[in-house]
Amino acid sequence: MIRKLIDGIKRTEAPIVVGLDPKVDFIPKRILDKAISQHGESAEAVAEAFWQFNKEIVDHIHDLVPAVKPQIAMYEQYGIPGLIAYKKTVDYCHEKGLLVIADVKRGDIGSTSESYALSHLGGTKVGSSIVKGFDADFATVNPYLGSDGVKPFINVCNEFDKGIFVLVKTSNPSSGELQDKIADGKPLYETVGALVEEWGAQSMDGDYSNVGAVVGATYPEIGRILRDVMPHAFILVPGYGAQGGKGSDLVHFFDKDGLGAIVNSSRGIIAAWKNEKYGDPAKELLGEAARAAVIDMKEDIAGALK
Amino acid sequence: MIRKLIDGIKRTEAPIVVGLDPKVDFIPKRILDKAISQHGESAEAVAEAFWQFNKEIVDHIHDLVPAVKPQIAMYEQYGIPGLIAYKKTVDYCHEKGLLVIADVKRGDIGSTSESYALSHLGGTKVGSSIVKGFDADFATVNPYLGSDGVKPFINVCNEFDKGIFVLVKTSNPSSGELQDKIADGKPLYETVGALVEEWGAQSMDGDYSNVGAVVGATYPEIGRILRDVMPHAFILVPGYGAQGGKGSDLVHFFDKDGLGAIVNSSRGIIAAWKNEKYGDPAKELLGEAARAAVIDMKEDIAGALK
Repeated sequence: MIRKLIDGIKRTEAPIVVGLDPKVDFIPKRILDKAISQHGESAEAVAEAFWQFNKEIVDHIHDLVPAVKPQIAMYEQYGIPGLIAYKKTVDYCHEKGLLVIADVKRGDIGSTSESYALSHLGGTKVGSSIVKGFDADFATVNPYLGSDGVKPFINVCNEFDKGIFVLVKTSNPSSGELQDKIADGKPLYETVGALVEEWGAQSMDGDYSNVGAVVGATYPEIGRILRDVMPHAFILVPGYGAQGGKGSDLVHFFDKDGLGAIVNSSRGIIAAWKNEKYGDPAKELLGEAARAAVIDMKEDIAGALK
Repeated sequence: MIRKLIDGIKRTEAPIVVGLDPKVDFIPKRILDKAISQHGESAEAVAEAFWQFNKEIVDHIHDLVPAVKPQIAMYEQYGIPGLIAYKKTVDYCHEKGLLVIADVKRGDIGSTSESYALSHLGGTKVGSSIVKGFDADFATVNPYLGSDGVKPFINVCNEFDKGIFVLVKTSNPSSGELQDKIADGKPLYETVGALVEEWGAQSMDGDYSNVGAVVGATYPEIGRILRDVMPHAFILVPGYGAQGGKGSDLVHFFDKDGLGAIVNSSRGIIAAWKNEKYGDPAKELLGEAARAAVIDMKEDIAGALK
């Protein structure tokens, strides 16, 4: 699967993933009002608004980027209707030729991790039929439970041609509380990085493996170190834009060919219509502003990688 | 909320939580066949079977224990229909007077953790209405992202009178790969345990806090240490029974009053009907066998705590 992502990055010349992380605050009034008029003040209304919101963004950006990354928590917050909107979004992105990175950060003991892997990446036999859960292309995985929590995901990657990104160094301010702890003479994120490289050997797909890593744009120096620790792991880089990461911070995450990393931006793109830089917010130019923001981000990263 | 759990433990004299972790293999043929005859070989059929399975168990055990712990991965595996069965199970357990520990192991950066917390424990304002997601009483939380990933859960606990159990030392064989790493002169699980105690100070509810910890029954010596490190944290103990933990292993997880811990058993109870000890498996005595297995577990633990 990682090869498909790399092909997509080469085709679009954009190592960019758009984070589809809707919040009620980001939804233009025209979309939200219509949904509430149809469904009342309900989870169904928010879910419908999320779906229309995502659809308009995807319609305007699908030719510019290889992938999207919906953050499932945003949908899960609205229960079953929210998750129906999540699933519709995944399917619609596939129709539009986008790869989908399910930002689910799941992880459990072995047999339970297998269920999560089948839920988000694989499928389960029921009698003679295969039943799919959410069927994304990649999922993010939490490593705190160790190898036997991650390996079921790798098995599913191998069976269904999918990929994962393991949390190594997250973008948030307190990520260091555990991830930076020095043990065996090195920070814990390096230990996890070495595990990612080891796990990846079981699922190579071209120059990279289907076992990637999440490393926050907010820690560029750590990105440089981890790029060396994990030569076969693609890095998913959150934290660009709204969380503080800039294009120039990203250089070290990439390999010498300008590959090896894909940068996520959520708010900077999906809420760009609220930024006067992209037109009068009162006009609610959701799709157009998202497209312009992706083009700006593409230039920022290309400039930095030059 | 932790006080409600303690009251329930005292009332039932059972520091026991029944893990509602259905798998197709555990479902009696009479239930599965009926569901497939209604819904075909589909996710809907499995979801209906899970729901009937849970209902029969809950009907037979609700007076014996204070709480259940559905493992959401089992339901998520079957997509939207699976999660509908999960939600029906949570609501039904509440009707029967049981507390529900949502075993979701969620955790993300701050704003995203807030969404997860609202999803599983709280509710979200939509206009003037409050929209609930899955509305359990407790959730399990992964600490790998540090304080800013956990605090949004604590805020929601305080607002909605709920609780969490933070993963400290999990029951699986490779839990030590990261959790046992020695940093600052002590294993990482002790660092996380100390954080749990610190976080708990923000949500005290009687002698214990609403911030509990998950510590596997498979590591009794570590349980003893963590009991001291976290004097105000209730311990949720998985790994009893099928994973290898015995009643005598559990002593150290409890305080001097026989409180401070609650032990989970899943397969040993919900698949007890497949064990000849509880009657001829061909009779598929799902509910009766689950009840007998809970009573056996209660005696095992009471004997060990004497």
